[in-house]
Amino acid sequence: MTSPIQSILRPATARRVGAQARVSSTLKNALPHAARSGPRNLHSTATSPAIKPFQLYTAGTPNGRKVSILLEELQDQYGLKYDVHPIDIGKGVQKEPWFIKMNPNGRIPVLVDRNRADFTVFETAAILLYLERHYDTQLKFSFDPQTCPNEYSEMLQWIFFTHGGIGPMQGQANHFVKFAPEDIPYAKKRYLDETKRLYGVLDIRLRDRDRDWLAGRGRGSYSIADINAFPWVNGHGFVGIEVDEWPHVKAWLERTVERAAVRRGLAAP
Amino acid sequence: MTSPIQSILRPATARRVGAQARVSSTLKNALPHAARSGPRNLHSTATSPAIKPFQLYTAGTPNGRKVSILLEELQDQYGLKYDVHPIDIGKGVQKEPWFIKMNPNGRIPVLVDRNRADFTVFETAAILLYLERHYDTQLKFSFDPQTCPNEYSEMLQWIFFTHGGIGPMQGQANHFVKFAPEDIPYAKKRYLDETKRLYGVLDIRLRDRDRDWLAGRGRGSYSIADINAFPWVNGHGFVGIEVDEWPHVKAWLERTVERAAVRRGLAAP
Repeated sequence: MTSPIQSILRPATARRVGAQARVSSTLKNALPHAARSGPRNLHSTATSPAIKPFQLYTAGTPNGRKVSILLEELQDQYGLKYDVHPIDIGKGVQKEPWFIKMNPNGRIPVLVDRNRADFTVFETAAILLYLERHYDTQLKFSFDPQTCPNEYSEMLQWIFFTHGGIGPMQGQANHFVKFAPEDIPYAKKRYLDETKRLYGVLDIRLRDRDRDWLAGRGRGSYSIADINAFPWVNGHGFVGIEVDEWPHVKAWLERTVERAAVRRGLAAP
Repeated sequence: MTSPIQSILRPATARRVGAQARVSSTLKNALPHAARSGPRNLHSTATSPAIKPFQLYTAGTPNGRKVSILLEELQDQYGLKYDVHPIDIGKGVQKEPWFIKMNPNGRIPVLVDRNRADFTVFETAAILLYLERHYDTQLKFSFDPQTCPNEYSEMLQWIFFTHGGIGPMQGQANHFVKFAPEDIPYAKKRYLDETKRLYGVLDIRLRDRDRDWLAGRGRGSYSIADINAFPWVNGHGFVGIEVDEWPHVKAWLERTVERAAVRRGLAAP
């Protein structure tokens, strides 16, 4: 079935093509191998046949992967499914008018929810919070804002810390290390140093009470605070940073990547 | 009364010194004139004597002013009060151990809530959402996440847009325009161009349905999405950007600054 927003925007890409790696048919052949590696078990604990698949417009970046990781987790917990629409950000597809109608900022990821009148969500962390509110009914990856308001606030604090800190600063480090047309040692050092400082802040947090996860009582509980930070920190090698200096961050990365949903999310699209 | 966290941290600064511009006594004389302009009417619509004043550790930056604007709004609506603890960020006070215990990132603003066992919140937008959840009981500056989940999500989307976009990018523009030890035209242009592009995104949003405010049905409702974006955009002149190019943004700035609480919030500390 083609939803209204799809028929307005880009009718040819909306068709689902099967089970996992459910990638828009017209774009499927343009994908790297990892995204086309065939069906996986979608129904590990439960199925929700009444819930239509989420439509995820994304690319293989840290921000895109935050959402695909949570979607894979929701799949494992509740059997929820999603269709991947890969966006070729190198060609500027995210700046085309049909995309700007979904997100005026022209950035991936964008989520369209056919279960709720094609409600459209942009900004990675807003997508995570949206999915939590409506679909993580057992609060497997968040905290109840009514009964656990302090844990919920701590989760938000670490989400904003990543969203305004690690994300943009490591993004700029990446630019000056890899893509800037001229070598600017000052800028490169500035953003690498700031990224390292922010990893150090994560290390302080995780060292406190020997935490396993960023938010939650005691040693914490795995939540979207971790999912929101993980893909950036996991990509430390792209900017030439080693994490040995921050043993608690290193252990947290290893702990996170042990999750099957995280590994699958990192491969989509 | 000195709360436990205060006595651990910095006992001398916790004393309140009167009514409005309730600034820590030991630091009061270091403040600019605007913050010392004497008592104002704290009780425009209601008083909440049972609610202890919030403790705000802040400085005169866009991020600090987001929180002081909301606190002034809550004061006008509910009579809530707050004590300002000015932090001299030029001297690096926010990197001192007592501050790092409150916020391991070493950044202002930080809010301490004596009504809830000195619960401490960092990250500007997390503070705004915390204050909304616990104290804006009539939802004057937010939306009910239960009954208006779409408006609530839109508000979050624009909060994250500012927090990960305008904030860090305009912050970097400011650095390369004013503070970088060498003139780097490439970096200066990069961040000024990106800040302008992001203002353009705000303009698209406000132009849509001739909006007054960033979130909410119809022409929108003034909310923490606006409060979160306003102090950065209002500071466009600091990086030499004029806003005539974005008439909807310009009108939104004028509309926002008409509010007395916004003008007071801009002056604190």
